[in-house]
Amino acid sequence: MRATLIYGAGDVRVETVPDPAIQQATDAVVRVLRGCICGSDLWPYASMPAVDHGNRIGHEFLGVVEDVGADVSGLRAGDLVVAPFVWADNTCDFCLEGLQTSCRHGGLWGRNGIDGGQGEAVRVPQAQGTLVKLPVGEDSALLPSLLTLSDVYPTGHHCAVTAGVSARTTVTVIGDGAVGLCAVLSAKRLGAERIILMGRHKDRTDLGVEFGATDVVAERGDGGVEKVLELTGGDGTHTVLECVGLKEAVVTAFAVVRAGGVVSRVGAPQYPEVPMDFGDFLRNITLTGGVAPARAYIEELLPDILEGTVDPSRVFDRTVDLDGVPDGYRAMAAREALKVIVAP
Amino acid sequence: MRATLIYGAGDVRVETVPDPAIQQATDAVVRVLRGCICGSDLWPYASMPAVDHGNRIGHEFLGVVEDVGADVSGLRAGDLVVAPFVWADNTCDFCLEGLQTSCRHGGLWGRNGIDGGQGEAVRVPQAQGTLVKLPVGEDSALLPSLLTLSDVYPTGHHCAVTAGVSARTTVTVIGDGAVGLCAVLSAKRLGAERIILMGRHKDRTDLGVEFGATDVVAERGDGGVEKVLELTGGDGTHTVLECVGLKEAVVTAFAVVRAGGVVSRVGAPQYPEVPMDFGDFLRNITLTGGVAPARAYIEELLPDILEGTVDPSRVFDRTVDLDGVPDGYRAMAAREALKVIVAP
Repeated sequence: MRATLIYGAGDVRVETVPDPAIQQATDAVVRVLRGCICGSDLWPYASMPAVDHGNRIGHEFLGVVEDVGADVSGLRAGDLVVAPFVWADNTCDFCLEGLQTSCRHGGLWGRNGIDGGQGEAVRVPQAQGTLVKLPVGEDSALLPSLLTLSDVYPTGHHCAVTAGVSARTTVTVIGDGAVGLCAVLSAKRLGAERIILMGRHKDRTDLGVEFGATDVVAERGDGGVEKVLELTGGDGTHTVLECVGLKEAVVTAFAVVRAGGVVSRVGAPQYPEVPMDFGDFLRNITLTGGVAPARAYIEELLPDILEGTVDPSRVFDRTVDLDGVPDGYRAMAAREALKVIVAP
Repeated sequence: MRATLIYGAGDVRVETVPDPAIQQATDAVVRVLRGCICGSDLWPYASMPAVDHGNRIGHEFLGVVEDVGADVSGLRAGDLVVAPFVWADNTCDFCLEGLQTSCRHGGLWGRNGIDGGQGEAVRVPQAQGTLVKLPVGEDSALLPSLLTLSDVYPTGHHCAVTAGVSARTTVTVIGDGAVGLCAVLSAKRLGAERIILMGRHKDRTDLGVEFGATDVVAERGDGGVEKVLELTGGDGTHTVLECVGLKEAVVTAFAVVRAGGVVSRVGAPQYPEVPMDFGDFLRNITLTGGVAPARAYIEELLPDILEGTVDPSRVFDRTVDLDGVPDGYRAMAAREALKVIVAP
């Protein structure tokens, strides 16, 4: 089959790799109908040192089950399924607590002989725990929305949930990327009435407003902080959803959070220590978030997508086939595209 | 009257200062029956640059109301009261949320013309909101226990509460100082069944065991981390109560917290950035805590003290009069005394 590999910064290639097949009785093989490129894929695309043997890449996909191992029940060939961006048995103590990203028998796509999601097919370990059946057909117009259940939508949701967003909390979302926009959507869904979106790309913040943002702050750094404080009577917001991952963004987060409030971060942190100072200690600020256990949220988020109440697929603004994946990376890195869907 | 001033590292003096008197209609004047020295007083005692005019110091006291301003209701001369370590109106939005440390009209003892607690008397701003009446007499044997309501006990309690300690959580307490021991007491009171106390002073950890610690780890650094992981099947504990304030302690905290767990810190952080790394992000660790809003907890913690169910006064192991305060600082800094009570 053909699949995507990354060889270093700026060097993504589509190559022929071995066809996946059942190796363990808990495996399934899934033919990929839709995959996509994640903002977090752009970190290695920006800075990965060159390697001789490329790494498989891609961790978001939905597709059709082609084969299942002997120990997999509840799934069979022909089922349409979505995979969360971390595979997990969904039965260990961490999984039962809703922390499938720390599953005792789970792992990441594209590592240690596991296929990536940007290819024609994937061998899925712990298939019964990992995959969630979707009640639609291969030709459903909802495939892009359902694909967001793999990562970007549950990641925004995790950010809002861990921050404690509710009807009683004001919210600042930092970042107008696909995760930031899904965080807006999630905050709105959880009842927030005041959602300030910090982002400087008007087309994206316009979508954020459609998703539920009540205010947009285009300024960054001190100017942006000043604006949010102005909008909140000098106090900042109860919750801050940090969806970027850069130190500058988390500095802004602490500057715009209200005393006693919560900063949640889901942008993979590109900094070794957190700039949370003595003042933040005096103000009783909490820092939470982390890698979203998407698997924990799929069943909860699914009905709204099926009913059309929310449409997170709007974060996709370009579709490519497998051959178009390298250009998809280029376009996302150049901010020509918000999020690229892959239809192999 | 006489009161304590600090002039720099190692330089604490007791001097004559102006007698306090009502200045605002919201003030009260309290004659101090008992004050004490806080672990946080040891930070300036260790490193404060020398000054010509000393700063008033001490932020924990209980005493007898001598005079009240015209706008103070519910308090009158003769009432026995305890003061939390931050004064507050107890009516603003932050106070109503239980965050009196961020009161819009509150402040710190010993700053900006406000008396400190290590003296004969104190002018108490926002007296109606700040002071809590105690149903005992001046000769009560409970005065030391009631004095802990000023800071050390609610600080340990705040650490446990913000960490989410309950019967369902395992707990590590880092630090065998008075706050760490009160954190053990609080975790036990909140129902925790497994409480690992990290501390290397046997007399203190022995008291910790009496307060409810089920395991004691005397090793520090990597050796201590290894021990806690051994005790918890390699996972660490759901909650970690960091009661030291040094970077080394918070590094240990992140190393012994279970995935999905919470580190709460109440030790005033002596480091500018938090060593919370990518692994902590992947494990969904939350960092919370901060300066304890003692005022929020006094009514809740009072009954157990009055009934004798808990005895946090056991953290006091030395009593001095005002003249003895400088030697009290020396003894606490030298770890000869755990916590020193002041009877002016």
